[in-house]
Amino acid sequence: MYQTVRGMRDFLPEEARKRQFVFAKCRQVFEKYGFQPLETPAVESLELLTAKGGGGDEIENEIYSFKDKGDRSLGLRYDLTVGTARVVATNALAKPFKRYYIDKVWRYDRPQAGRYREFTQADIDIFGVKGVDADVECLLVTKRVFDALGFKGYVIKANSKKLLEALMAECGIPAGQQVDALRSIDKLDKIEWNGVEEELEKRGVEGREKLVDFLKSNKRLECGELDELIAKATALGVPMEYDATLVRGLEYYTGNVFEIRAGGKWSCGGGGRYDNMVQLYGGQGTSAVGISFGIERVIQLMDEAGIMPELPPADVLVAAAKDEVRDKAAEIAEELRDKGVNCEVDLSGKNLSKQFDYASKKGIPKVVVLGPREIEAGEANVKDMASGEEKKIKLDELAGALGTP
Amino acid sequence: MYQTVRGMRDFLPEEARKRQFVFAKCRQVFEKYGFQPLETPAVESLELLTAKGGGGDEIENEIYSFKDKGDRSLGLRYDLTVGTARVVATNALAKPFKRYYIDKVWRYDRPQAGRYREFTQADIDIFGVKGVDADVECLLVTKRVFDALGFKGYVIKANSKKLLEALMAECGIPAGQQVDALRSIDKLDKIEWNGVEEELEKRGVEGREKLVDFLKSNKRLECGELDELIAKATALGVPMEYDATLVRGLEYYTGNVFEIRAGGKWSCGGGGRYDNMVQLYGGQGTSAVGISFGIERVIQLMDEAGIMPELPPADVLVAAAKDEVRDKAAEIAEELRDKGVNCEVDLSGKNLSKQFDYASKKGIPKVVVLGPREIEAGEANVKDMASGEEKKIKLDELAGALGTP
Repeated sequence: MYQTVRGMRDFLPEEARKRQFVFAKCRQVFEKYGFQPLETPAVESLELLTAKGGGGDEIENEIYSFKDKGDRSLGLRYDLTVGTARVVATNALAKPFKRYYIDKVWRYDRPQAGRYREFTQADIDIFGVKGVDADVECLLVTKRVFDALGFKGYVIKANSKKLLEALMAECGIPAGQQVDALRSIDKLDKIEWNGVEEELEKRGVEGREKLVDFLKSNKRLECGELDELIAKATALGVPMEYDATLVRGLEYYTGNVFEIRAGGKWSCGGGGRYDNMVQLYGGQGTSAVGISFGIERVIQLMDEAGIMPELPPADVLVAAAKDEVRDKAAEIAEELRDKGVNCEVDLSGKNLSKQFDYASKKGIPKVVVLGPREIEAGEANVKDMASGEEKKIKLDELAGALGTP
Repeated sequence: MYQTVRGMRDFLPEEARKRQFVFAKCRQVFEKYGFQPLETPAVESLELLTAKGGGGDEIENEIYSFKDKGDRSLGLRYDLTVGTARVVATNALAKPFKRYYIDKVWRYDRPQAGRYREFTQADIDIFGVKGVDADVECLLVTKRVFDALGFKGYVIKANSKKLLEALMAECGIPAGQQVDALRSIDKLDKIEWNGVEEELEKRGVEGREKLVDFLKSNKRLECGELDELIAKATALGVPMEYDATLVRGLEYYTGNVFEIRAGGKWSCGGGGRYDNMVQLYGGQGTSAVGISFGIERVIQLMDEAGIMPELPPADVLVAAAKDEVRDKAAEIAEELRDKGVNCEVDLSGKNLSKQFDYASKKGIPKVVVLGPREIEAGEANVKDMASGEEKKIKLDELAGALGTP
């Protein structure tokens, strides 16, 4: 038997329908704000993928890299930002340049329960805006997406790389130890305070007690851009929460960072400002801010919260009680589709009870049964699969009757 | 400067919007017929990709293959069928199993003008139905997609592998030369009749004159499944055309084959019946039929035919005449979005004339201008960017006025 490649998986229809639902909601909201689609290749040069300013060391080890038949060093993109930053660096685009992208990315890390080497991100990014209004817009979009998906009680945690740097300076942590310190703090969710303190000690980070005390207190040093972000976003209804310990792993962030928590201790998305990246990729200095949602995590949280709607594969199955009415059934199905009903027609050629089994197995909520007598009378028998209830409906009223459940 | 990898390309927003438009139309029609999404990995084992019954020799040479860091022999999928057939072979799925999939595929062939190593297919396939009704449904879907995209005068050419085999037997072509003969005929569009006849001669195919005479006459031998397909599809309004020379390269087809011609001599999609593939992949014998559209080709044909609609990046830009009204502008933009208007708000902080430039460069058709006086009067100035016409509109009537162009 052939299998999926290690760390990869299929999404069968039941799961794929949820994904299409979430993709559609994201797209709809992204376009509401004038974000435009952009597509970049799955394969990029390893040189680009490992360029400074990209994912940082952690991601570099995880690049799904390979040599092609022409001996080129390549890799599958590890996120949707790297290709986009290349596009912005190499094209003269009108600014602000606002793009969205929903697609797969690949990381060659150790597959574990719930972690895969292929996963899906939904990103928005704004290039060419210095001011905090662009950060606010990313959070407005986030709020509208999570509202549209039916989440309640989610929060967006925010912090600032600049604030973290100021804090470390104030605690007397030497420049050479600051990245180490940030990395330890970034693991808080995984290893808790005990673990963080142990790591800081092991690494001999100077000033660590002062730092930990401050972070535990969740006090906020003054920070213009973070204060403005929180004030503006809150005024526009975004549920904001300052979190002194929020670091966000990626070293490319330069200002505000944010993270979405929706019913759980794990992030289901995040982002921030990365004003240096386009320049590091050879482009002109270009301010940038963006946010990325982890689609698989979002869907898992929706399932857990019971907010994923029913997504039937079709509104109705048109079943034929006798073979002689199959052509007529096909015609009626076409008319229903013309009128906007998503409609399967029996293709199996099996008997009526098997057709009911099929509808029930697939979760199709209604079955239109056509027999010679029904057709002669210009009507159909419509069965509601949940209640078992049956109703005779005139053929020319069928679409209306099915459209209004 | 970093570049795209050889044979790969970016789709900038203007092009990507067209793609999203076509994807949405395809999805909408596919779901109208009860096709369900399925997603399979981009990366598959080379063993699967080169398995007999898959793409055949021609595609085998074009597989984008590589070894991963764990020394596994892998490749990027060359079409969307191979992963799907693996899924059908290895999962107990209720039949008929109808899936759609719109995504990228990769082939490592020589990049040329208009040919890329990464391209996009939109596929539907039906598994588990022997009868021709499934073939007909694939063509009904095709008709509805091409109608929805605005194509006029397209045709679906059809033929049957069984008919071709019967014909070759009748012409006295020995079994060992039939694949060669089919390959030569398959090149007709590229090398014309002269070229085909030359190739057949060079290969020493016996009975070639009789074959060529027959094909040129476009006569049709009796063939139950092809006759039934053409009759049924025609009765349901699908523009069918028999083509004796239609071969379709892929060797896995076992019955009817079809190809879409929409304003040009090149195919923009095709498919057919492939009843052996699932079994060759280790599954139970499963009838299968499907069709695949080449998205880049479809878009090119739409552009050439002038049927691609205007796809503005947003309905409107909300511009601020003075900095002091920016917060109010952000609020009004949010209200417009609540009411279903796709709406950008100025993020640049630049003066009004620069904001107009931005709208004009991006192709945003209308600009809502807010100044302190307008806000005091509870109204906005709405400028139509095409005509230059300006109108004062009450703020609470704004969404309605913008929604009805």
